[in-house]
Amino acid sequence: MDELKPPQRLLLGPGPCNVPYRVLRAMSTPLVGHLDPLFMQMMDEVCSMLRQVFKTENQMTFPVSGTGSAGMEATFVNLLEPGDTAVVCQNGVFGTRMIDVAERCGAKVIKVEAEWSQPLDQQKIIDTLKAHPEAKLCAIVYAETSTGVLQPIQEIGAYLKDKDTLFLVDTVTALGGVNLEVDAWGIDASYSGTQKCLAVPPGLAPVTFGPKALEVLNNRKTKVQSWYLDLTMLSKYWSSSERLYHHTAPITMIYGLREGLRIVLEEGLENRFERHAAAAGHLAKGLGEMGFGFWAAEGYRLPPLTCAIPPQGWDVEGIRKKLLADYDIEVGGGLGPAAGKIWRIGLMGENACVQKVAVLLRALQDFA
Amino acid sequence: MDELKPPQRLLLGPGPCNVPYRVLRAMSTPLVGHLDPLFMQMMDEVCSMLRQVFKTENQMTFPVSGTGSAGMEATFVNLLEPGDTAVVCQNGVFGTRMIDVAERCGAKVIKVEAEWSQPLDQQKIIDTLKAHPEAKLCAIVYAETSTGVLQPIQEIGAYLKDKDTLFLVDTVTALGGVNLEVDAWGIDASYSGTQKCLAVPPGLAPVTFGPKALEVLNNRKTKVQSWYLDLTMLSKYWSSSERLYHHTAPITMIYGLREGLRIVLEEGLENRFERHAAAAGHLAKGLGEMGFGFWAAEGYRLPPLTCAIPPQGWDVEGIRKKLLADYDIEVGGGLGPAAGKIWRIGLMGENACVQKVAVLLRALQDFA
Repeated sequence: MDELKPPQRLLLGPGPCNVPYRVLRAMSTPLVGHLDPLFMQMMDEVCSMLRQVFKTENQMTFPVSGTGSAGMEATFVNLLEPGDTAVVCQNGVFGTRMIDVAERCGAKVIKVEAEWSQPLDQQKIIDTLKAHPEAKLCAIVYAETSTGVLQPIQEIGAYLKDKDTLFLVDTVTALGGVNLEVDAWGIDASYSGTQKCLAVPPGLAPVTFGPKALEVLNNRKTKVQSWYLDLTMLSKYWSSSERLYHHTAPITMIYGLREGLRIVLEEGLENRFERHAAAAGHLAKGLGEMGFGFWAAEGYRLPPLTCAIPPQGWDVEGIRKKLLADYDIEVGGGLGPAAGKIWRIGLMGENACVQKVAVLLRALQDFA
Repeated sequence: MDELKPPQRLLLGPGPCNVPYRVLRAMSTPLVGHLDPLFMQMMDEVCSMLRQVFKTENQMTFPVSGTGSAGMEATFVNLLEPGDTAVVCQNGVFGTRMIDVAERCGAKVIKVEAEWSQPLDQQKIIDTLKAHPEAKLCAIVYAETSTGVLQPIQEIGAYLKDKDTLFLVDTVTALGGVNLEVDAWGIDASYSGTQKCLAVPPGLAPVTFGPKALEVLNNRKTKVQSWYLDLTMLSKYWSSSERLYHHTAPITMIYGLREGLRIVLEEGLENRFERHAAAAGHLAKGLGEMGFGFWAAEGYRLPPLTCAIPPQGWDVEGIRKKLLADYDIEVGGGLGPAAGKIWRIGLMGENACVQKVAVLLRALQDFA
């Protein structure tokens, strides 16, 4: 078996994106043990930086040892018990996945749906919640990676603030790339991934749980169905003075996340959001001039991920493969009803800049 | 927040161990996407090397995107359904954890126990299996990381070969360090971790499932309770020509595992086992001369992990802390009944050599 020598891809898909050299360098740092007092200090630093990025005071904010989907599962399995009702919003792959995960917890799922590419109507969700005050939680995707829709959620959070129902939000393709305010928006639980706007390799899922969610957790009648993701035990390792061993933390990944978060906070969240928005605007302008359409409804487009419809006559999948093979540029294909019809173009982390937009636009001219 | 600059620890605990420079370098390789054809090829390479290390032809052999405990959970949740019977052997922390995980799957657990530090009697397990032919699986830890006991398992595997009951084996602190023959020993499912004798950072759990286990999986009446670990979906990403997206694979960790496996196979498994055994023998001799005792029963000691009882009068936990703080040497503390009484000394991966043994023995002389 040969040495590893992949080409230098420009990763403009739905994530992972290219990772800053500083993060890769941090990941090649020799390991310390997962119970080393110095590692405990790093864990605290990571949690503290994650709180800043989530804009929350939640003590229970840490990275789950798995990718974004493990974060999704962690929020659902800890908060739901068999027989519970869950209101789940669905307008893309990840809303659909949340329904599957909730049902595997034995929950009865009430769906609120919208067409893929369209945002959900907040009032419709609130009406559903009024009809189902028994719902343990309401789950929604803030940034749908399958459609590029940025979902307005603040009215739902405001409605649920004084209700028993928890507000659970998927922030995978948002965290560090578009504004997100966990505390101010009344979000009780949220999960994200490292490989999107944080620009760290995939492998960790930052999560945050607020006081209302912890109360639900502490009042469970049954054990959490996942041992690996059981927050009642994980919390004793991540955020108590006991530092009780649960499982061996993925040390190298945490080194990488620590450096990635340092970079995010050095730049400043608001600067970072502006940079993502500016790059997306630049891309949309260039694509529009070339005759591209856009899938996500206007006014609801997610800056880190543009879902673009190539001009008529273009071989959508063929050109996507050529971009990868000949130009070393990765863009994502469509999922579900958009399969073979759109490209999902990510401008995340350090890729959210005019230079990378210029590379892609110029390459596309060769196919026009 | 400062740059990451941990000290250079010598990791002689129960894992992680020190990671070869080549693995760290591979992990700082720029990323490709998780659906990139080149990544698919790397996945195949990793699976092929894992088969060699597990000594199996099992097609369904791949790394789960989580640490060893996620591997444990993956084997149980895929093979057990509510109401199933599971025979689980318990003589340490990880046997105890298996019981907890099996019960969270809704299984009825029949325990076979032995004192911690003692191996389990294979005939007793076989008698239990005879009394419970309805058991869906029999689970046992081959290398108990909490006690340093290497458990004989071949008679159980031979007994179960023509029975319906599956044989599930924890090989976390064995894989790549002591002989393990999944196919020849009749093991139907096994999980391991990367941070032990494979000398790769923690974060992945190699698993293997044989034909008998896949039949059980395919005949399930209920969905696997974990979406993240659902093998019916994971298998479509890892080992079918469809390469159906499930979750974003932890690319950097897979780069590291690939390089770690390359190193293991370059050395050769049998050479590697001999090296681990020789280093453990050297350590035991030196410790014995200093008046140390050994916790695990004689004849059943796990070469990669020696559970040593410091001489009377030694401040067991105090000296362990000093070894870390003053000498940058990590050894593990005892768990459960052995807490505060023993040290768990790992000689894994590149640390299984006389040089590292000499460092530790010389440091210990300062406390004699």
